[in-house]
Amino acid sequence: MNTFKYTLVKKDENSNARLGILNVFGKEVPTPIFMPVGTQASVKFLSPQEIKEVGSHIILANTYHLWLRPGEGVIDKAGGIHKFMNYDGPILTDSGGFQVFSLAKRRKILEEGVHFRSELDGSALFLSPEKSIEIQEKIGSDIAMSFDECIPYPSDYQYVKDSTERTLRWAKRGLEAHKKENQALFGIVQGGDYEDLRSYCAKELVKMNFDGYSIGGTSVGEDKVTMYRMIEYAIKDLPEDKPRYLMGVGTVNDILEGIERGVDMFDCVLPTRIARHGTLMTSQGRINIKRNIYKEDFSPLDPECDCETCRNYSRAYLNHLFRCKEGFGMRLLSIHNLRFLLRLTEQAREALSQDRFKEFKKEIYQRYPYDERGF
Amino acid sequence: MNTFKYTLVKKDENSNARLGILNVFGKEVPTPIFMPVGTQASVKFLSPQEIKEVGSHIILANTYHLWLRPGEGVIDKAGGIHKFMNYDGPILTDSGGFQVFSLAKRRKILEEGVHFRSELDGSALFLSPEKSIEIQEKIGSDIAMSFDECIPYPSDYQYVKDSTERTLRWAKRGLEAHKKENQALFGIVQGGDYEDLRSYCAKELVKMNFDGYSIGGTSVGEDKVTMYRMIEYAIKDLPEDKPRYLMGVGTVNDILEGIERGVDMFDCVLPTRIARHGTLMTSQGRINIKRNIYKEDFSPLDPECDCETCRNYSRAYLNHLFRCKEGFGMRLLSIHNLRFLLRLTEQAREALSQDRFKEFKKEIYQRYPYDERGF
Repeated sequence: MNTFKYTLVKKDENSNARLGILNVFGKEVPTPIFMPVGTQASVKFLSPQEIKEVGSHIILANTYHLWLRPGEGVIDKAGGIHKFMNYDGPILTDSGGFQVFSLAKRRKILEEGVHFRSELDGSALFLSPEKSIEIQEKIGSDIAMSFDECIPYPSDYQYVKDSTERTLRWAKRGLEAHKKENQALFGIVQGGDYEDLRSYCAKELVKMNFDGYSIGGTSVGEDKVTMYRMIEYAIKDLPEDKPRYLMGVGTVNDILEGIERGVDMFDCVLPTRIARHGTLMTSQGRINIKRNIYKEDFSPLDPECDCETCRNYSRAYLNHLFRCKEGFGMRLLSIHNLRFLLRLTEQAREALSQDRFKEFKKEIYQRYPYDERGF
Repeated sequence: MNTFKYTLVKKDENSNARLGILNVFGKEVPTPIFMPVGTQASVKFLSPQEIKEVGSHIILANTYHLWLRPGEGVIDKAGGIHKFMNYDGPILTDSGGFQVFSLAKRRKILEEGVHFRSELDGSALFLSPEKSIEIQEKIGSDIAMSFDECIPYPSDYQYVKDSTERTLRWAKRGLEAHKKENQALFGIVQGGDYEDLRSYCAKELVKMNFDGYSIGGTSVGEDKVTMYRMIEYAIKDLPEDKPRYLMGVGTVNDILEGIERGVDMFDCVLPTRIARHGTLMTSQGRINIKRNIYKEDFSPLDPECDCETCRNYSRAYLNHLFRCKEGFGMRLLSIHNLRFLLRLTEQAREALSQDRFKEFKKEIYQRYPYDERGF
């Protein structure tokens, strides 16, 4: 039971896509999979039961946010994050690295770690590979991430090289610091848009023998062609028997392109964030429920969807709830968008099992015109 | 099946309290009962299933708010409010009178009705007894209210007399306008703090033979002694075979005092409104979950409560959710507070069935010191 193991079920004949099963210490996660984000130990508005009902098998929580509030000590005393938030499925935590580089103020990167100021109260904070591991161990997630620098795009070769080498040294320090049983640790492949640096980073991480490998430094402003190239560069030197996780990616396009290139795990705040602003993902593309045309539209949000929201509520009711700024509307739309993306990965797995992933992707693209913004 | 009928099960020997069953067109509502408020056709943050799980048997929706948004026409086209909001239990609508007097701007009361400006966009609006009935018929609630003036407190005798007489004329007009089958109509007893006017109003309404009687004009700033006297004045001339509804009342004290004086139905936004600000009603009195002392308190919100929140989450987790302004926290606290009040009425009914209501009330008061703010 107490194992962390990726089993490759089937490799696609026409692409690098793969069907697999990730055993997370006794809990099975079919891959490819999308992971809803529960930043503050809550997938916004949803109960743990609803998280499961939309088809989630694993969720993500943010180390940085939980470190600041309520503090890893509180979660540790609660008996770990599963007990704290009443969710017994697998939970992955990021390393805090991305938030340090996107949220924190007055950042100073040293070899020992990163000094910065809290965006909440301006207090002086320090995060290092060892500290990130310590926090994640106390949070008690099932899968932890190594501390890395999320490299801005574009950056020149020398900066990316130096940063990637530091990320590798940090990965090694994190690995040495990591002691917790029943918690897997992933290394993060950086290297920007440089093929040799991505390849070098991947190979060095593989030598350290992590439980899985993440692809970082994408979705930071680069165009889609570049992003997909980064994924290809990062993946080609990763072993077949370990899971690959593309961090922070969650549009329909990006998930399908990622799967095609061999990615097993995805996460993104997109479906729940846009839901809170009234935007929903449907089999006809994205729509905003606040538009006047839905005021007397008594059809479901998406006629092809099987979620609780689509089965029980009309566009007119959701339009009304959003006009009145009712929290129940945000809850219902979050349920729908998560179900939409989780159904997409379900369908992708089904297509893979039937040796028709390429056709499936083509069908999806024929229905939804390609859009840089994703849909 | 298609009847609206109050059945008196048992009268308390030591007070005017009564145990009953209200048959609302085939759906049975045990009384005394508290009704959660779903202002905008949504009990804020809660699903219809959760509304039932906390023990609700009937809920309230606001005519004024639904008239402005989405408009009664939209709800009518949806097939009525039950279909619109996906809730199949009994729904009571108020008349809009209270909101016209508390929210609307530049109000002008005429015999024909009330002219005023919308607080949303300043547009000119007009509500009359006939219009209120028309809106409620289109909303499709199970129980409708007559349009009345909610008299400010204090008001002089002549003002209260004139207003109460107009409310009686409005009640008659509403009764004549009301045509919808399977929708009960209640008259509203006004009369301020004047015994003869309350008595007169009650008697005149009874002559018109409404399906039930509401007590209006309380909770408008008067002290508790005055409020309880108003209830006594209003109830003493009401028939035993019709339900009595005390409008807008929802503290523990007021519910128990109301039950003792013969009230069957209560409603209030209090439990859900204070929940959204982190305040919860517990068997130890009110507490605010945001306080620092709960940061590492891993006990349930209320050890005596059987709600979903108390069964699954700690004070520390709720403290964290509220500090992070997470909507799931508001949802969990709303569930708890509603369950708390609904359990109170369940316990009151049980005490009535065991001929020990006075003792029950005393026990509750011994545990919670009397407080003008309620608890």
